[in-house]
Amino acid sequence: MAKSPFLKNTWYAALLSSDLSEDLFSRRILDIPILFYRNQDGAPIAMHDRCPHRFAPLSMGKKQDNCVVCPYHGLKFDESGKCVENPHGSGQISEKAKVRSFPLIERHGFIWIWMGDLPADESALNRHDQLDKGHPNGIAHTYMHRQCNYELITDNVMDLSHVDHLHGEIISTRGQLSPLIPNLVEKNGDISVRWEYEQTPAILILDPFLPKPGIGGKHFIEVTWSKPSHIQLTIGATQDENPILDYDHTVAQYDLHTCTPETENSTHYFFATRRNHLEEDADYNAMKIKAMHDAFEQEDGPILDAIQGLMETNDFLAMDPALISSDMGPIKVRRTLKKLIEAEQ
Amino acid sequence: MAKSPFLKNTWYAALLSSDLSEDLFSRRILDIPILFYRNQDGAPIAMHDRCPHRFAPLSMGKKQDNCVVCPYHGLKFDESGKCVENPHGSGQISEKAKVRSFPLIERHGFIWIWMGDLPADESALNRHDQLDKGHPNGIAHTYMHRQCNYELITDNVMDLSHVDHLHGEIISTRGQLSPLIPNLVEKNGDISVRWEYEQTPAILILDPFLPKPGIGGKHFIEVTWSKPSHIQLTIGATQDENPILDYDHTVAQYDLHTCTPETENSTHYFFATRRNHLEEDADYNAMKIKAMHDAFEQEDGPILDAIQGLMETNDFLAMDPALISSDMGPIKVRRTLKKLIEAEQ
Amino acid sequence: MAKSPFLKNTWYAALLSSDLSEDLFSRRILDIPILFYRNQDGAPIAMHDRCPHRFAPLSMGKKQDNCVVCPYHGLKFDESGKCVENPHGSGQISEKAKVRSFPLIERHGFIWIWMGDLPADESALNRHDQLDKGHPNGIAHTYMHRQCNYELITDNVMDLSHVDHLHGEIISTRGQLSPLIPNLVEKNGDISVRWEYEQTPAILILDPFLPKPGIGGKHFIEVTWSKPSHIQLTIGATQDENPILDYDHTVAQYDLHTCTPETENSTHYFFATRRNHLEEDADYNAMKIKAMHDAFEQEDGPILDAIQGLMETNDFLAMDPALISSDMGPIKVRRTLKKLIEAEQ
Repeated sequence: MAKSPFLKNTWYAALLSSDLSEDLFSRRILDIPILFYRNQDGAPIAMHDRCPHRFAPLSMGKKQDNCVVCPYHGLKFDESGKCVENPHGSGQISEKAKVRSFPLIERHGFIWIWMGDLPADESALNRHDQLDKGHPNGIAHTYMHRQCNYELITDNVMDLSHVDHLHGEIISTRGQLSPLIPNLVEKNGDISVRWEYEQTPAILILDPFLPKPGIGGKHFIEVTWSKPSHIQLTIGATQDENPILDYDHTVAQYDLHTCTPETENSTHYFFATRRNHLEEDADYNAMKIKAMHDAFEQEDGPILDAIQGLMETNDFLAMDPALISSDMGPIKVRRTLKKLIEAEQ
Repeated sequence: MAKSPFLKNTWYAALLSSDLSEDLFSRRILDIPILFYRNQDGAPIAMHDRCPHRFAPLSMGKKQDNCVVCPYHGLKFDESGKCVENPHGSGQISEKAKVRSFPLIERHGFIWIWMGDLPADESALNRHDQLDKGHPNGIAHTYMHRQCNYELITDNVMDLSHVDHLHGEIISTRGQLSPLIPNLVEKNGDISVRWEYEQTPAILILDPFLPKPGIGGKHFIEVTWSKPSHIQLTIGATQDENPILDYDHTVAQYDLHTCTPETENSTHYFFATRRNHLEEDADYNAMKIKAMHDAFEQEDGPILDAIQGLMETNDFLAMDPALISSDMGPIKVRRTLKKLIEAEQ
Repeated sequence: MAKSPFLKNTWYAALLSSDLSEDLFSRRILDIPILFYRNQDGAPIAMHDRCPHRFAPLSMGKKQDNCVVCPYHGLKFDESGKCVENPHGSGQISEKAKVRSFPLIERHGFIWIWMGDLPADESALNRHDQLDKGHPNGIAHTYMHRQCNYELITDNVMDLSHVDHLHGEIISTRGQLSPLIPNLVEKNGDISVRWEYEQTPAILILDPFLPKPGIGGKHFIEVTWSKPSHIQLTIGATQDENPILDYDHTVAQYDLHTCTPETENSTHYFFATRRNHLEEDADYNAMKIKAMHDAFEQEDGPILDAIQGLMETNDFLAMDPALISSDMGPIKVRRTLKKLIEAEQ
């Protein structure tokens, strides 16, 4: 097996649940083209999007019951990738006529894929049950595609010190975040950074939902990376005198950012956000996910793509960067992931 | 000389006769840019499309009598590629001022080119005189360009088991072809596969011309590859009780498919079709060639381009494919061609 | 330091003076992205267009007084590239937080940049004071971008024997130039070629300004290359009996062509032209620069780009060209530049 630049025996988000139907859908993941579809029970299926006969993309073929039929010579494969029909000659099926299938888990509105050769380990996929708690109008998902290496995106989310510089008024911390050195905690292989601070007014995405808008409040942001590239971010604000700074005791949102390499230099970026206020308002929900999607697409995204074009290597640390205090989180993540990839090979 | 991925001392179709006039025309063949034009006698001329002085494309220059004048400094070359005029200094002509010319044969509506360093061997170009017999409205030619290696196209024509899977109603064998294992014959270096079968109704491109349309008949298809990438295909149907299954004794068409590498991953694909029915009908002729052109462009072509994108190497057998019985023909062709290329180097 | 295909300790034109304002401007030079802007005194500034922290392009950031602020995390750099503000943590500034700046000279309507590691040597930039003498409507500048190696352009200007072949009526020498073998002079590292000849009528760009248009005259053209890729061209015509063939004693123009590698295969091409006739006519000036710009863009440019596509290497001499007498100048230039580049490494 050739050296991979990616961690393979792990879970990646492959697509939004809402993006998969019984229709054939092709997406490249870790530089391998994958065919996805739902079977008649609604269960998601994934296999190599390449017929083992003449290497045609199965996604250009058609569904037949729970099977997929190759567009070129009509070989039929069941949902495990096993060839179940060869319409040619005596109909004998070659031992080689097998398509590699990939284990999937559908959870929290995403379909997760295991790309490695070791048996899929369901327990290795972190739970984010908070996403599923509450009114259905209190959660939204989105998908973005970027022309940059996925670690540039995890860097971006692990180090929020950019928010006051890159983003607009709506998520400004009024300069409060940058001077702080976040608290870093490692636990069970996960890496968290946490900031606590006051700002006036409160961050505008939360301010209207505080008891007294406009007068500011205490804030916390906690960001936790789990291998290979999942980042859970909670942000909350409160006006309590002796506040408990967590999701349940503040006006808060609980977000999941997860990045999946398409190739070494392009990324599938998935995002979900759950909130504990105005949970039933479908219009607000739609506006909120659109605003977050647009902020990334229009503000972070173009910078990250441009950085990709200016880096001679994806090994960021090899480029001898001038680090700042808030790089602590992303650098710890990069070093941890690098060790995991090296250990796997 | 560097290793070439192509057989060089052989004939390739370079262009349709009808595509060449006295105007300069440039086409890349075996990854070499070639200038084509007709001289005042109508004879086709081919030479390297690159001035030996400063490497400008001669095709951007102009014709002068039977010569071509370089657009940059006006060096003039005759149809053998010899420099016959240098308007600079004393007008002396450097020994190096020669453009490589390429032998051509014009035959069957195509212009064929010899790309090798050995003397061109006219006898090495197979004759397809059947193409020239009959009414001029009984033959048509077309040209297509594809973003795939040429052997993917010869595979496609040598193994017709795909027709019932990839193509529409009009050339369906109603499932009769796939179960058959074709008869393979090697003769004088050529490789033929032949199928004989019955179908009802007869294949729709021939059915209307049988004595009793709609009731089916006996069919044969014979496909013969000649090096490096010429494939002659005859298909016929008859309702005779004791039929002779050849072009002369059936309602039939005689086709020539020939592929010329533009680069390793792109191909000039030429096609001619002669028929022995409704020979004088110009409208039918035009409709027929358009339908065949479109079938390839819209049905085979996109699959072959997609396959190219999914293959890590053009050495198909190195990818350990799951072969089926009808691959016999194309695999024999690939192995034969590979040996010829290796022998040449 | 890796081998560079370019001479580095020398001056290149970076941009037209008129193209630079206080706004941030990015241009790739010798394959390095450079940020340009003017400070509040109007002085031009150049630095690596890449933040040393996370490699974002500074040109996507914003100006603040004479400084530039990185768009991603707000690090601020002064015009020398020194980091003067880090809004993060304690605000400490890493030793590595330096952006490489590049020496500039603004002269003759161009901004010149020194890309090497040795100290910039102002005396190494040839003066072309003739450009600045006379009425402001007697000079014009233009900028062009081409997809070819810069030496193909210097070849083009050093060998004017192409003008009667590639260009239109307006700069035709009526076939007089090509037969001449120009006089080549080397002096202080510069290389000049000079032609003197008569033509009737005089070259059309000068003919209307001679005492008796239409009857021809004596002409001279002198072209001088200075390292690395600056070419000064003077052309003049006169009807004097015993003429002195220089700019001051003929109807003449004094041009500067200068080429700057963007990458190995693309070039920034700058041009200025000064004339000693109809100097005050702004409309004529605008027409003249447009005509010269268009001649290059439409006549030389497409040929040079096509040549680039047909050359297997940028080492022209390694391709064993069939040289002609007028190649003397460009070949001397290529050999001289090659030695300078080798000596530098």
